Amino acid sequence: MATWVISRRLSSSSCGSAWRGASAAAHDRWYSTSFREEKDTFGPILVPNDKLWGAQTQRSLQNFDIGGERERMPLPIIRAFGILKKCAAKVNIEYGLDPTIGKAIMQAAQEVAEGKLDDHFPLVIWQTGSGTQSNMNANEVIANRAAEILGHKRGEKFVHPNDHVNRSQSSNDTFPTVMHIAAATEVNSGLLPSLTTLLASLESKSIEFKDIVKIGRTHTQDATPLTLGQEFSGYSTQVKYGIERVHCTLPRMYQLAQGGTAVGTGLNTRKGFDVKIAAAVAEETSLPFVTAENKFEALAAHDAFVETSGALNTVAVSLMKIANDIRLLGSGPRCGLGELILPENEPGSSIMPGKVNPTQCEALTMVCARVMGNHVAVTVGGSNGHFELNVFKPMIASGLLQSVRLLGDASDSFEKNCVRGIQANRERISKLLHESLMLVTSLNPKIGYDNAAAVAKKAHKEGSTLKEAALKLGVLTSEEFDALVVPEKMLGPSD
Amino acid sequence: MATWVISRRLSSSSCGSAWRGASAAAHDRWYSTSFREEKDTFGPILVPNDKLWGAQTQRSLQNFDIGGERERMPLPIIRAFGILKKCAAKVNIEYGLDPTIGKAIMQAAQEVAEGKLDDHFPLVIWQTGSGTQSNMNANEVIANRAAEILGHKRGEKFVHPNDHVNRSQSSNDTFPTVMHIAAATEVNSGLLPSLTTLLASLESKSIEFKDIVKIGRTHTQDATPLTLGQEFSGYSTQVKYGIERVHCTLPRMYQLAQGGTAVGTGLNTRKGFDVKIAAAVAEETSLPFVTAENKFEALAAHDAFVETSGALNTVAVSLMKIANDIRLLGSGPRCGLGELILPENEPGSSIMPGKVNPTQCEALTMVCARVMGNHVAVTVGGSNGHFELNVFKPMIASGLLQSVRLLGDASDSFEKNCVRGIQANRERISKLLHESLMLVTSLNPKIGYDNAAAVAKKAHKEGSTLKEAALKLGVLTSEEFDALVVPEKMLGPSD
Amino acid sequence: MATWVISRRLSSSSCGSAWRGASAAAHDRWYSTSFREEKDTFGPILVPNDKLWGAQTQRSLQNFDIGGERERMPLPIIRAFGILKKCAAKVNIEYGLDPTIGKAIMQAAQEVAEGKLDDHFPLVIWQTGSGTQSNMNANEVIANRAAEILGHKRGEKFVHPNDHVNRSQSSNDTFPTVMHIAAATEVNSGLLPSLTTLLASLESKSIEFKDIVKIGRTHTQDATPLTLGQEFSGYSTQVKYGIERVHCTLPRMYQLAQGGTAVGTGLNTRKGFDVKIAAAVAEETSLPFVTAENKFEALAAHDAFVETSGALNTVAVSLMKIANDIRLLGSGPRCGLGELILPENEPGSSIMPGKVNPTQCEALTMVCARVMGNHVAVTVGGSNGHFELNVFKPMIASGLLQSVRLLGDASDSFEKNCVRGIQANRERISKLLHESLMLVTSLNPKIGYDNAAAVAKKAHKEGSTLKEAALKLGVLTSEEFDALVVPEKMLGPSD
Amino acid sequence: MATWVISRRLSSSSCGSAWRGASAAAHDRWYSTSFREEKDTFGPILVPNDKLWGAQTQRSLQNFDIGGERERMPLPIIRAFGILKKCAAKVNIEYGLDPTIGKAIMQAAQEVAEGKLDDHFPLVIWQTGSGTQSNMNANEVIANRAAEILGHKRGEKFVHPNDHVNRSQSSNDTFPTVMHIAAATEVNSGLLPSLTTLLASLESKSIEFKDIVKIGRTHTQDATPLTLGQEFSGYSTQVKYGIERVHCTLPRMYQLAQGGTAVGTGLNTRKGFDVKIAAAVAEETSLPFVTAENKFEALAAHDAFVETSGALNTVAVSLMKIANDIRLLGSGPRCGLGELILPENEPGSSIMPGKVNPTQCEALTMVCARVMGNHVAVTVGGSNGHFELNVFKPMIASGLLQSVRLLGDASDSFEKNCVRGIQANRERISKLLHESLMLVTSLNPKIGYDNAAAVAKKAHKEGSTLKEAALKLGVLTSEEFDALVVPEKMLGPSD
Repeated sequence: MATWVISRRLSSSSCGSAWRGASAAAHDRWYSTSFREEKDTFGPILVPNDKLWGAQTQRSLQNFDIGGERERMPLPIIRAFGILKKCAAKVNIEYGLDPTIGKAIMQAAQEVAEGKLDDHFPLVIWQTGSGTQSNMNANEVIANRAAEILGHKRGEKFVHPNDHVNRSQSSNDTFPTVMHIAAATEVNSGLLPSLTTLLASLESKSIEFKDIVKIGRTHTQDATPLTLGQEFSGYSTQVKYGIERVHCTLPRMYQLAQGGTAVGTGLNTRKGFDVKIAAAVAEETSLPFVTAENKFEALAAHDAFVETSGALNTVAVSLMKIANDIRLLGSGPRCGLGELILPENEPGSSIMPGKVNPTQCEALTMVCARVMGNHVAVTVGGSNGHFELNVFKPMIASGLLQSVRLLGDASDSFEKNCVRGIQANRERISKLLHESLMLVTSLNPKIGYDNAAAVAKKAHKEGSTLKEAALKLGVLTSEEFDALVVPEKMLGPSD
Repeated sequence: MATWVISRRLSSSSCGSAWRGASAAAHDRWYSTSFREEKDTFGPILVPNDKLWGAQTQRSLQNFDIGGERERMPLPIIRAFGILKKCAAKVNIEYGLDPTIGKAIMQAAQEVAEGKLDDHFPLVIWQTGSGTQSNMNANEVIANRAAEILGHKRGEKFVHPNDHVNRSQSSNDTFPTVMHIAAATEVNSGLLPSLTTLLASLESKSIEFKDIVKIGRTHTQDATPLTLGQEFSGYSTQVKYGIERVHCTLPRMYQLAQGGTAVGTGLNTRKGFDVKIAAAVAEETSLPFVTAENKFEALAAHDAFVETSGALNTVAVSLMKIANDIRLLGSGPRCGLGELILPENEPGSSIMPGKVNPTQCEALTMVCARVMGNHVAVTVGGSNGHFELNVFKPMIASGLLQSVRLLGDASDSFEKNCVRGIQANRERISKLLHESLMLVTSLNPKIGYDNAAAVAKKAHKEGSTLKEAALKLGVLTSEEFDALVVPEKMLGPSD
Repeated sequence: MATWVISRRLSSSSCGSAWRGASAAAHDRWYSTSFREEKDTFGPILVPNDKLWGAQTQRSLQNFDIGGERERMPLPIIRAFGILKKCAAKVNIEYGLDPTIGKAIMQAAQEVAEGKLDDHFPLVIWQTGSGTQSNMNANEVIANRAAEILGHKRGEKFVHPNDHVNRSQSSNDTFPTVMHIAAATEVNSGLLPSLTTLLASLESKSIEFKDIVKIGRTHTQDATPLTLGQEFSGYSTQVKYGIERVHCTLPRMYQLAQGGTAVGTGLNTRKGFDVKIAAAVAEETSLPFVTAENKFEALAAHDAFVETSGALNTVAVSLMKIANDIRLLGSGPRCGLGELILPENEPGSSIMPGKVNPTQCEALTMVCARVMGNHVAVTVGGSNGHFELNVFKPMIASGLLQSVRLLGDASDSFEKNCVRGIQANRERISKLLHESLMLVTSLNPKIGYDNAAAVAKKAHKEGSTLKEAALKLGVLTSEEFDALVVPEKMLGPSD
Repeated sequence: MATWVISRRLSSSSCGSAWRGASAAAHDRWYSTSFREEKDTFGPILVPNDKLWGAQTQRSLQNFDIGGERERMPLPIIRAFGILKKCAAKVNIEYGLDPTIGKAIMQAAQEVAEGKLDDHFPLVIWQTGSGTQSNMNANEVIANRAAEILGHKRGEKFVHPNDHVNRSQSSNDTFPTVMHIAAATEVNSGLLPSLTTLLASLESKSIEFKDIVKIGRTHTQDATPLTLGQEFSGYSTQVKYGIERVHCTLPRMYQLAQGGTAVGTGLNTRKGFDVKIAAAVAEETSLPFVTAENKFEALAAHDAFVETSGALNTVAVSLMKIANDIRLLGSGPRCGLGELILPENEPGSSIMPGKVNPTQCEALTMVCARVMGNHVAVTVGGSNGHFELNVFKPMIASGLLQSVRLLGDASDSFEKNCVRGIQANRERISKLLHESLMLVTSLNPKIGYDNAAAVAKKAHKEGSTLKEAALKLGVLTSEEFDALVVPEKMLGPSD
């Protein structure tokens, strides 16, 4: 039977297309030569000796050969399982769990939380929709590790994955709980700091550029002037509101399902368990987690994820706009708008020597498109719950977590490798501004819209300046024109 | 030339496929026999005599023959133009606009706000992306109507659409302003009251059903019991949070772009104009509108719409879940789950006599799918702004407004014609509950997970009751079983 | 009771927010002063005397007050009902339907097909998800009209809506049938001709511009040259493939569900009915409709609509790219790229005199965003079928039909009012081309990538020409440079 | 400087949140102790000695620290680079490349194609949007490896990444080419075989179940009967059409951009290069690749990917429907529909002993939701191209490739672990069938719709059988009833 397991892993790479196999090096990580027997209610099954997981994890590995290694459950979920199981053991001790076993569980769970046992979590996202198998993976790994800590062997169930590690819990409440822990933690430790740094950088550019008067553009067409600082203040405001938007969704993300067990009633837990465990998680993470006000909602729906994903979708929309503007304003060097000079980070072309491209804008906008797509996936998953349980949990979790991670990382990269180094091409900006016809707008209050339009049209048609056209049309004197058409006076309302 | 205009409208219906034409009755509404000449900076153009619009509206009608009558700019936008132009005239009087003209504008604008001039707003959504043509439509209609009020003729521009009605304004700030006025008003007067009514109805059902113990279902499979009231409390919590989600987005929706004019600088307005006009709109609508903190953001991006659309998307996800559950719980009458009895509102089938269908659930879930689609359209539009102006405004506005309206109306219909009348089929619920095998879960703490699983499997295999199986396996006495397996005791945590 | 009906319609507008009401003129269309009694299996109900619809339509009007008049079932669906019911009567006569009644039905149905009875189809999309109520609307209107043709009164059921008009049919097969008829007809008569015209126009521009050498742009940055004709050939190829993509989906759209009746088995029809009716529809429409190979799939799923919507989504993606390019290439007039001169169709700004905007591009890109959104709505609806029937039919149908109509109309408008009139700004194009640094690429084969890069970088840094930089670096003689750097020779592979 | 590189990699894991770090084991894979200097046009940079990549790859690693290891460029893209570079060298030899160098390149490229050098491709998707850096990664690895084959050292550029390996190529044509090679290969070797197997399995179930008469369900409500085989034929037809849909998109996927170089003109290639290289790739892959008819379209747009993604979206919609039906039909075991018995593959619950869940349906439906989301991401990316180049390439490629892989794998898993083992619960099916009221439909032709409806309603109200109700109402004799109401006769049209 050991042979069977080995050959299965090997054949999985050879019977799939040659395209699919993970690399040889990666394969080595899975290749085991010795096995032990583990058991669950379905019977015995062989498990690699060097792994801590048990029967149910092994069964899932074999039943869900979908997507390969890169589709494994996101690490923030694994780490959150470590936190949760540690807290659960702590609270279970209060409710009567043997403290020796309880403390060993806490120690093992801490190792999971710290990422020391990542290699013992081989399951992919595409498993049961409740995440049961990853919950059992956590239970099995922690039980075996805790047993070892207490001097017992793997597979003997001295510490039982269900009766001890999963005590007072169900996959149906643990998985939504780790979803919330993981998402809230990632948002707080990754995304929000990154957006805040980006905001600071954009605000600082807005100040740096506050005196550079430039042509505005609406409909992609020349319009009335503004300062480059004002233009960047639009970007920074978008990011600022984006941070507010994400913050607004957190109160519902901080609600934990734990204590609802199988269907939300809390059967097989004890009164107060839910409140205590939320408090323990809050202490462990330093985030304001609370027990969910309604556990039925917390298991059956993931509206909180759809909501947060919606906030990220809005952030993606904002960043797409900003990055698009920056690459268009930086287009050129000679045949584009050329108002901004972006940092040169790498050679731009394998065929066109000397080309420098707005690659940070490109990475960021690709991330934004992906976030918009993830949002639809999360939405579809969120809308498809049945009765007491939504069973799109791992997909929803991984979609949101990917969006959080990518938006954070890409914001960092964009800030560090692009925004921070943006320079204004003052000469070019000034040249364009003074050629523009839209300065004519400042004549409206004096000569009326229809006359002003005639001036602009004449100048456009004849390729002349506005002033020449205005004088030819006789609507203004030269002095009047000079007094009225001053870009620096067109940057705000009049007194 | 009059002939040309007539024949154009007619040919538009005949050269299109026969499929497309509006009905004959509708056509009559557009067919005019007399015309007057109106002018704009492009020159003269004939306009139907019985219409108040001017040259630019007429030009747009001819240049954008897209989608037909049903694609006209949403009425809430037209009404918001009425409000805005009234407020603008009021503030402009303070800044020196001739009060006679100003008051006539206010009166004409009030008529627009009240819907009296709807037929004078023929333009479709699919026009310029800044909504300029609808802004000019409003300016032209109000100018002509105000001129009439003052005893002058249409088309003579005694009241000028640009210089008077649009004074201190640009399409670029008026259109986002009416978008925000329309959306905030519709959300407050339509959607939120409807969701609140639905919430109350679901909560009342939750109380009504609080003592009905029923089987739970996870993964669509039998699970541990809960009360029907608990199940409905999950639904009502979803709606309650949905209301909170929509509320959370309003602070940014209450920010008005007015005063930014063409590119956000406020050129051609006077200091304080922006604050005063927001105050006037707030007074007129009794909603807490304020001037946007950053006008550049307010013109160049519509993140506030993307954000609110995201909240509606979450509401749609919630309602999809609720409506799906209700129709599945009401499935039958004899071959489904049959736990709920839904109101019978109409014959269900044109071929199967006596069939009654969950049609309100169907209308609602179709609306939810549409809202999810609108959200993607709004997202794509929001992400595609260029420089100082987003030019997907009418599409973004109409998408969100449709979502708001449909969710509100469908919630009302669902509440009135379905939720309110739902009855529990107590007999059926009780029968299913007592046949279930999942009551075995309450044995876990006593005999452990593995033994309990063996009991359930044996009963399943043999088609017997749990008790029979438990006794045969000898894991419990009859008395112990009866004391432990009591659905009514499985509805919450133990002491 | 008549009073009740009247007051209900009125109150519907007054109890809703003032924002929602249809205009007064529209209201008149619904206001009736006399009523007759109609009956269905739910009992009697009052119906306006001047309307042909019956009890079930009236009931739906009252049960589904969602979205208002603009949300009525799309007219192509109504017209397709006319075609289908006519064909059904024709085939039913062959199978024994009284020819007098049958012929009256055919005549009445023909009137529906021609749009003469549009005002008798008041129902909105947001009704039962099978479209049953619109099927009954068609049955009732045709029955009453046929009865009148035969000299009987409305409401007397001399011609019975179910037993005669709906004979051998179910909503479950008629509604998917009219969906397919409507979509295939609209695609063939509206969308494909419009795309074909656009294709011809783009191809003609590609030829017109074939000798205009211009700078290429990749990553928005200057790149190697190409001709403007080549650039337009990319656009025309996209449209050409778009037409192919839509064509590819039609074989499945031509499959009709008719003959499947309630669940796909064809119960209550006669053998051969399905084939005959498809043939009759094919003859009536001159399109190659056939009976669906599998009626279970045809009722339970609308994959054909999801597929066609996917093709439209691809077309939208193409047109978004093309319209974006054209507006950016036409940006200016003085501070943008300025390579294209777009037709001026209307004044561009209500505040900036003389501004002309790429409004046709804007209308088209807004349509594209909407089509992408509709696609998601159709996808969500398509994925949510249960058992023998998908009940998102009206939403799916209306979403696709809107996409078809808008893409067709917007393509027409874009072609007529923009593409056709595009001119190249030859002077500007030439100026930009000769300033570009990317002509350096033609030096690669001679001096290698690294040297060529050094030349470009030097020129960029010093603001000099490439030639100056190359000579200074001593990598080429002046003669070599002139022989190699010839934009006209950079337009294709070498011999 | 070596120190700097080391510390950077380490700090990258420590400065990120603890959540993010890859596992310790994974880290070892990147940790290098010795370095060599590589150079590009930006200057020298240190590269780990044990890696084959060069300066540009190293630069990208440092500039794009986004998403971590799991976000690396999909392996099918890397393998396709191997194929392409091999073919390019082969064709370049024909055009004059030194055969010694050319053959070494071919050998090195072959190793890439076989996956032997996967560990030398560290770059993530989130890089430049043209995929330039991955093209350079391929060029650098192959150049260094080819140099080694020829006895030279890494980094010495005896074989030059640009001048030799990338000869006659640009990232702008190679990356779209490998996108098409990878997608077409994965579709043909992975997805289509999997769907074909699933189709066969569903068809075989359709035959197995052809005599099992069961109740139909429309609107989730009881409807007229059909056979379980007929029901499954609907599913198999959906999959069959899905295969057709994917096939329909391949003609455009088989078009290769290679030969277009930087902007589509083919500058720096030789005439015929494009045709020859497509032929070489076709030979190497045994797939009918051809050179793209229009290279401008092939670089500037990825409509072919949007189109194929649309086909996958339709397949996802189909599979979502099928998997949903199967889990609902298999719901129970005692409180659901219970018509199907699904294979038991693992314990279903960590708290409810004995529970067995439709986990394969869950994995599949989660995949479907993800595919729908990927489709939106691909659509957004596809619509955002600018001028001569779409710069969302890696995101578009990875989105589609993930969809292809997941749909294929999940179909396999679903077929093997679910469909194949589905059994009909004949007893339950028969019981439900005979209790149903919808058999009344077969009375329509005899007693008319209205009478039949009365019978069904009476039976429903009184909880009696149809026959009892019919007799009480006196509309039929007992003999007539028995002759008419025979489920087995309700499975198709009558003669």
